Amino acid sequence: MKLHLGGFHDCTAPSSDKIFIKATGGGAYKFADLFKEKLSVSLDKEDEMECLVTGANFLLKAVHQEAFTYLDGQKEFAQIDPNDLYPYLLVNIGSGVSMIKVDGDGKFERVSGTSLGGGTFWGLGRLLTKCKNFDELLELSHQGNNRVIDMLVGDIYGGTDYAKIGLSATTIASSFGKAISDNKELVDYKPEDISRSLLRMISNNIGQISYLNALRFGLKRIFFAGFFIRGHAYTMDTISVAVNFWSKGEAEAMFLRHEGFLGALGAFMSYEKQCLDGLTVNKIPQRFPISVSSAGNKIYCSMNGKSNGNESIECTVYGT
Amino acid sequence: MKLHLGGFHDCTAPSSDKIFIKATGGGAYKFADLFKEKLSVSLDKEDEMECLVTGANFLLKAVHQEAFTYLDGQKEFAQIDPNDLYPYLLVNIGSGVSMIKVDGDGKFERVSGTSLGGGTFWGLGRLLTKCKNFDELLELSHQGNNRVIDMLVGDIYGGTDYAKIGLSATTIASSFGKAISDNKELVDYKPEDISRSLLRMISNNIGQISYLNALRFGLKRIFFAGFFIRGHAYTMDTISVAVNFWSKGEAEAMFLRHEGFLGALGAFMSYEKQCLDGLTVNKIPQRFPISVSSAGNKIYCSMNGKSNGNESIECTVYGT
Repeated sequence: MKLHLGGFHDCTAPSSDKIFIKATGGGAYKFADLFKEKLSVSLDKEDEMECLVTGANFLLKAVHQEAFTYLDGQKEFAQIDPNDLYPYLLVNIGSGVSMIKVDGDGKFERVSGTSLGGGTFWGLGRLLTKCKNFDELLELSHQGNNRVIDMLVGDIYGGTDYAKIGLSATTIASSFGKAISDNKELVDYKPEDISRSLLRMISNNIGQISYLNALRFGLKRIFFAGFFIRGHAYTMDTISVAVNFWSKGEAEAMFLRHEGFLGALGAFMSYEKQCLDGLTVNKIPQRFPISVSSAGNKIYCSMNGKSNGNESIECTVYGT
Repeated sequence: MKLHLGGFHDCTAPSSDKIFIKATGGGAYKFADLFKEKLSVSLDKEDEMECLVTGANFLLKAVHQEAFTYLDGQKEFAQIDPNDLYPYLLVNIGSGVSMIKVDGDGKFERVSGTSLGGGTFWGLGRLLTKCKNFDELLELSHQGNNRVIDMLVGDIYGGTDYAKIGLSATTIASSFGKAISDNKELVDYKPEDISRSLLRMISNNIGQISYLNALRFGLKRIFFAGFFIRGHAYTMDTISVAVNFWSKGEAEAMFLRHEGFLGALGAFMSYEKQCLDGLTVNKIPQRFPISVSSAGNKIYCSMNGKSNGNESIECTVYGT
């Protein structure tokens, strides 16, 4: 479930005594009963793709230095003209991966995706190592060496490049391919190396499929977001290298500082949309209950309209 | 290493006492010293991509009912007009995967590939199960149920489809994603289920990337080959479903009866090419040492020219 905000009466049903909060993603289904039972709060489910796009559009237009490139350890903020934002490809990496072509506010299509996502990294990682959580597994990858397990082009071609088709000796020919011929069991491999190979496999694959989809629709920009990335240098580097490699330097991966909060932000902003239903623009200042603004790497959301003091909120989304 | 044929003197160096055999693929490098030491045979390395393409072109033109589709357990032979064969995408699945755009005899480009191939299936499978060989792991997948480990769309959205974006409840949202939340260790999962999830993950991913590349170059036909497939029903079915799903029914995966022998056949046929060097066409019948023919599901290769009896060969490539 994405970030959600507590203490709202449903603004479309002001007479109701029920307390609703907006939520999106799988957790909005998974935890609905729990919220109801423990907190007497109903989850008002918003469409996940719509929330992701709304959140991304808001961030890219409103937050200074939201998007950046990351290659060879260098982070560079991108200058994005809000009037020249569309179309773009949004790649949201959660348990699985959604690839969404965004053409404007509310104008989008989920054009592709892959089942090899954060859930695959953590699921396989959990089975292959003794790690207890996602962050521990990610942390391990820092010290790992994927060449212990991955079969490289050089491993196949006697230590040399396959220059004729542009593959260097260090290119991964087969992820986990060395485990075929090594006379080793699982316990003989270091969890660090396994984590590194897994991270490289998943990130590289996402980068490749994303680029192919951007190419298909002629999209210049690919933004990667979702809770999988977590500002992790090696993940971003691998995705960037993949996009750079497959596009022969013609495309660039971009990342978002508030990568993990797109859905939450979109769900939050749907209050605005609902409360606008049936209103004309000149009535908005009086009835519009929320404003969203940003400063530095924080996003501020606050109640503006007339409301019961208990219902007012101020929410800060912390970025990295 | 691909299939190679023994007992040849190098036809380009008839005075040499060395015995050469044509070989291609990684094994031509890996086993070169072993062949030299144990058999006093030198491996004459041929370019792998060229051999794959030569082999595929020969099979698709010369062998009746070489290519077929496979969907929902139904095998259907494709009628391919040799004059309308090109261009096509050849996807060779070995340890890694090469995707080659073929435009004619000797006219090709390796346009893409993925490191998630047969080596990944077998490498990860070996680490996750107690299987001793590839075939055992493949066999296990027959009895497995991937839904035990894969996170489905229905698992995320309370058992329902995500109809708005065309994903049914049974679509895999995250390969191995259930291993995140299950309170299970590796030993608690059945090897059958692990094998099935792995096979589905790898096959589906190859199908998707292949389709995206076919689309990119406007290729109508995608032929899948390589030793990974082994005529295995579930593998072919998954690849077919992936191509069908991602192309919305507009593209079809095709398979080859002699899928595992493309490189070997191409390497074998390079004798022909070398021996033709410097010859004019009317000299070929006298000096051309090999003929390749097919009957049923066998390919016959035999020496035609004058040669020492010890050096003559007859090779049969058995298909499935």
